[in-house]
Amino acid sequence: MDIYDFSAHTDLAVEANELASRKNGSAIPGVHMDTEEEEGVKVTVIDVTSEQAARSIGKLPGHYITIEVPSLRQKDSDLQDRVATKFAQVFEEFLIKVGVNKNSKALIIGLGNWNVTPDSLGPLVVENVMVTRHFFELMPDQVSPGYRQVSAIAPGVLGTTGIESSEIVQGIVEKSKPDLVIAIDALASKSLERVNTTIQIADTGIHPGSGIGNKRRGLTQEILGVPVIAIGVPTVVYASTIVDSSIDLMIKHFKQETQNTGQIMGMLDGMPENERLQLVREVLNPVGHDLLVTPKEIDQFIEDIANIIASGLNAALHDAVDTDNVAAYTH
Amino acid sequence: MDIYDFSAHTDLAVEANELASRKNGSAIPGVHMDTEEEEGVKVTVIDVTSEQAARSIGKLPGHYITIEVPSLRQKDSDLQDRVATKFAQVFEEFLIKVGVNKNSKALIIGLGNWNVTPDSLGPLVVENVMVTRHFFELMPDQVSPGYRQVSAIAPGVLGTTGIESSEIVQGIVEKSKPDLVIAIDALASKSLERVNTTIQIADTGIHPGSGIGNKRRGLTQEILGVPVIAIGVPTVVYASTIVDSSIDLMIKHFKQETQNTGQIMGMLDGMPENERLQLVREVLNPVGHDLLVTPKEIDQFIEDIANIIASGLNAALHDAVDTDNVAAYTH
Amino acid sequence: MDIYDFSAHTDLAVEANELASRKNGSAIPGVHMDTEEEEGVKVTVIDVTSEQAARSIGKLPGHYITIEVPSLRQKDSDLQDRVATKFAQVFEEFLIKVGVNKNSKALIIGLGNWNVTPDSLGPLVVENVMVTRHFFELMPDQVSPGYRQVSAIAPGVLGTTGIESSEIVQGIVEKSKPDLVIAIDALASKSLERVNTTIQIADTGIHPGSGIGNKRRGLTQEILGVPVIAIGVPTVVYASTIVDSSIDLMIKHFKQETQNTGQIMGMLDGMPENERLQLVREVLNPVGHDLLVTPKEIDQFIEDIANIIASGLNAALHDAVDTDNVAAYTH
Amino acid sequence: MDIYDFSAHTDLAVEANELASRKNGSAIPGVHMDTEEEEGVKVTVIDVTSEQAARSIGKLPGHYITIEVPSLRQKDSDLQDRVATKFAQVFEEFLIKVGVNKNSKALIIGLGNWNVTPDSLGPLVVENVMVTRHFFELMPDQVSPGYRQVSAIAPGVLGTTGIESSEIVQGIVEKSKPDLVIAIDALASKSLERVNTTIQIADTGIHPGSGIGNKRRGLTQEILGVPVIAIGVPTVVYASTIVDSSIDLMIKHFKQETQNTGQIMGMLDGMPENERLQLVREVLNPVGHDLLVTPKEIDQFIEDIANIIASGLNAALHDAVDTDNVAAYTH
Repeated sequence: MDIYDFSAHTDLAVEANELASRKNGSAIPGVHMDTEEEEGVKVTVIDVTSEQAARSIGKLPGHYITIEVPSLRQKDSDLQDRVATKFAQVFEEFLIKVGVNKNSKALIIGLGNWNVTPDSLGPLVVENVMVTRHFFELMPDQVSPGYRQVSAIAPGVLGTTGIESSEIVQGIVEKSKPDLVIAIDALASKSLERVNTTIQIADTGIHPGSGIGNKRRGLTQEILGVPVIAIGVPTVVYASTIVDSSIDLMIKHFKQETQNTGQIMGMLDGMPENERLQLVREVLNPVGHDLLVTPKEIDQFIEDIANIIASGLNAALHDAVDTDNVAAYTH
Repeated sequence: MDIYDFSAHTDLAVEANELASRKNGSAIPGVHMDTEEEEGVKVTVIDVTSEQAARSIGKLPGHYITIEVPSLRQKDSDLQDRVATKFAQVFEEFLIKVGVNKNSKALIIGLGNWNVTPDSLGPLVVENVMVTRHFFELMPDQVSPGYRQVSAIAPGVLGTTGIESSEIVQGIVEKSKPDLVIAIDALASKSLERVNTTIQIADTGIHPGSGIGNKRRGLTQEILGVPVIAIGVPTVVYASTIVDSSIDLMIKHFKQETQNTGQIMGMLDGMPENERLQLVREVLNPVGHDLLVTPKEIDQFIEDIANIIASGLNAALHDAVDTDNVAAYTH
Repeated sequence: MDIYDFSAHTDLAVEANELASRKNGSAIPGVHMDTEEEEGVKVTVIDVTSEQAARSIGKLPGHYITIEVPSLRQKDSDLQDRVATKFAQVFEEFLIKVGVNKNSKALIIGLGNWNVTPDSLGPLVVENVMVTRHFFELMPDQVSPGYRQVSAIAPGVLGTTGIESSEIVQGIVEKSKPDLVIAIDALASKSLERVNTTIQIADTGIHPGSGIGNKRRGLTQEILGVPVIAIGVPTVVYASTIVDSSIDLMIKHFKQETQNTGQIMGMLDGMPENERLQLVREVLNPVGHDLLVTPKEIDQFIEDIANIIASGLNAALHDAVDTDNVAAYTH
Repeated sequence: MDIYDFSAHTDLAVEANELASRKNGSAIPGVHMDTEEEEGVKVTVIDVTSEQAARSIGKLPGHYITIEVPSLRQKDSDLQDRVATKFAQVFEEFLIKVGVNKNSKALIIGLGNWNVTPDSLGPLVVENVMVTRHFFELMPDQVSPGYRQVSAIAPGVLGTTGIESSEIVQGIVEKSKPDLVIAIDALASKSLERVNTTIQIADTGIHPGSGIGNKRRGLTQEILGVPVIAIGVPTVVYASTIVDSSIDLMIKHFKQETQNTGQIMGMLDGMPENERLQLVREVLNPVGHDLLVTPKEIDQFIEDIANIIASGLNAALHDAVDTDNVAAYTH
């Protein structure tokens, strides 16, 4: 088990930091956080600058960006275009921040399983993203300026291939020699309202136990030899964390109304978060109640957000694709 | 609003009866219930025999059968065959019980939306069921004995057709003149462990507000002029009812261990169920937390259970299809 | 068999007229034809004005429009937008020409089978078209001006429902009372280059034997009581007609080069078209060689052309949807 | 261009041999052919034993087996089971013949494109085949006897990944170290009746220009370092070869009836096959008539034949899977 994994019920740095800060009673030293919000799109930058800070929040040292758009589930195509454009800008700046060159060759890895809708984000992005590497290989003289080399593959999951995704990607990296890997993965979040409304970008790679597909080996710079940027969207949440965070919401709710929350919520009130979650799991597990769940409308949501990411990547990776109107380049 | 609708958070008579009995402190008069269990397959017969009983449990007078198979989510194809065979036997007996003739012509209606996985049960059953009506119409002399006339259609949902399913079905019934309508629909249940593990059969038709597609008019004998048998499977559950029933499980859990549950669970302990659910909803709704959710593996689950129902219907409706090996007739 | 059916190997009036004219040696009296072409989009208007003319070309008296875009198979999204806009203009004018009122309520029928790609045009259009009827029914005061009542359904095919599509539609028309039916269907053409590049609009309804799904009863004004406009796209062609029209092309090819085509093509040269096709069929049939075939890329083609038709219908049917930029309203 | 490629219009050795023998007037020296037929299933073994023979028929030296089942397109599930069983037996014997050990670890490669139905054979087989390698890696003590290590991946196509399939597979082979690669691919045949009714097994690998996806580099023992067995099914055919082979059928047809075929078919009669095909192409190409086509029912056909191959592979590769009832192990 990963030492950073104590809050394994969330893959989002923003949630992990929130939890740790609350537990700590104040901001975690060594974690720098910056938030801006514009027309319903909230961008949070989190830099985890020390090993100590990393241990405190249970996330690796590195740079994290979260784009949260609570109203993204409302099928508003104007909003979707706006988010794709914002994602493109944020991702482009992120590439510069983490030192990725304008001409670096990118390999996009779509993790997850085609046939499990909430786990199909990665393969869907790969299907919609623009690949160019073969043009550079086959007819280098005819590639217009403003494009970089991009390739993309969905390596499948261990249960259907019999091979760790990590090994497959390693083999492909050695043959195709990209300068950068961008890995797309579906995540688990702690709160239902973040499901399908949040995109996380991180320069820390993909780690065992993260994502919803139970990867056993990671996709990291150590393993692959090139920087790995992870893009994740929470698409599922454990029933137990829904219950736990709801109890938490109830406690907060009563705190606003009364002095005596303990009277209403009993011992649940004072109980430390991890202990309470543990308790909920112990009760739910034996009756088959602690499943990973996803919103009923997941088919539509996941298609929309995959298009946003694919469009955004196209604009961020190629100067020739206009950041102002990214949607036109995907279908 | 339907007078029977006070417990609208469940479409299952077995859950509604459980709730009402607990509230009442004893079995509801006028509700007859009978349960048998064999090798992990539990069959519960509920007869609601009076208006008064119906009001007490919030379900219409009529006959209900529930088949519960908690281990159905484990991809065990032998178990699936066994459940299909059990469903066929139970359904055949149900037809006799409610007075349906061996030669009655059946029209199978697959309610719900192709493109929303947890709502696609009906269309999936229609796709896999054996239809024979056209052979009777076009070459009546060549139909082997042991078959009855069966037709099937998935009428779509209001949001994609612009017409109430009820109106569409009424029109088709008037033209094709079946003696019996069998309506398949995805349901909402109160508890997550029943999702995709439970099949309900009822002779009360489909009513406004039941099912997950927000039907506004029903499919009933009054509207269609022929008996309507409903087959439903819970595929979704509200986040709020997950939370509420989990709190309930926690209270029960502590009651087994201690005298003083109130100390642990505070006022939640004594609170009447409906009030507590109301409270949970008030807390979750404003933060977009009260969604209808479905298990992550819904794609596989719904395909499996649609095959069970289609196979079972083929065996139950046609003497020539063997109840002992129903699976061979669908793919 | 339909008296108009002698040239059953094509569902396109433009092909039927071409054939008949060639056989006749000159234009068929009573058939008025008018063609315009602009930037690769060719629009042909054919009016069949007499019973005699109808018999000569094997198509019912009525109005036909064909939009041909040979380069439509090249995945050019600008061209697709242009064709959708052209289709919307042509269709709007067609409605006026055949006397359909601006406020007539339209029911769109998507004929064909979801699960057979070349036969899925109708269901795909229904899936993408904008329906509004339920807003008029449920909240008439809140519908913005510029919209008319539109509903849409894909009734399935005889083999999967057991009921003639014609009967299903009749039932739905009687209940939902549209003023106009628009029926979308996949067609067979005589020549491979028209497959997925041609759209035909006609006011003659859908007739037995037309389309690729072997309908046995039609969708016509006589049967449904309201005008029926058919929109069709050829998506398949018989192997035998590929062979026959290729032999024809070869003969023409040689005629341009030599006096003595007969020497090259033997008796095939002088043989009347129907006789030659008959001959080809006799040779191909016994070896399982006379299948209906479709281009390898049918999945992409059919999705593109279904989007064009859905976008075009949205713009043509609702004044509030802009004819100049129709694509924005479908995904 | 490959020196073996002169008859590039077919990927089937059985067709290439037929053509060459006819041209030659007698059997090709160095090509050994053996045919047996049982209840509608015809198995042809072709061994190309010399370079000279290889050049004559345009196929590499090696072993080829063709299983032809003309009635496979009739949706007969008993026949499908019988073919799967036959395929398993034939494939098992083929492994022995080409010296593959019972414990060799196999990597199954599903070439082709998910989203192009006639090109999706490989990915469909991969989706349905049983993989076991991860059990051997993660819990070697718990694997029952009778299984070998099998892994499987669908690497995508150049147009969607930007990387040659050959390079991807090479990388995966180097990491996962199989002893044997089994590559599944959709092929082009010369005759429409063989489409979706024929399975070819060969030990010559996958070569540039073969298959329908325009591979530019091959999957061969030279490149991958381990033996490569190719399994292919023709799913498409060029319109021009349909026309050409139909003309051929016509000539044969008339030859049986008359002395004077030349009078009927003109110069087409005596023309060498390649010249005639060239002529047909010249006529069809300019009018967009020379497409790759596939039967209308391709969706169903390809699913059926992918299941046959997946079931057959499961039985052939694992002793624990019974050759007599292979279908039970796939869905």
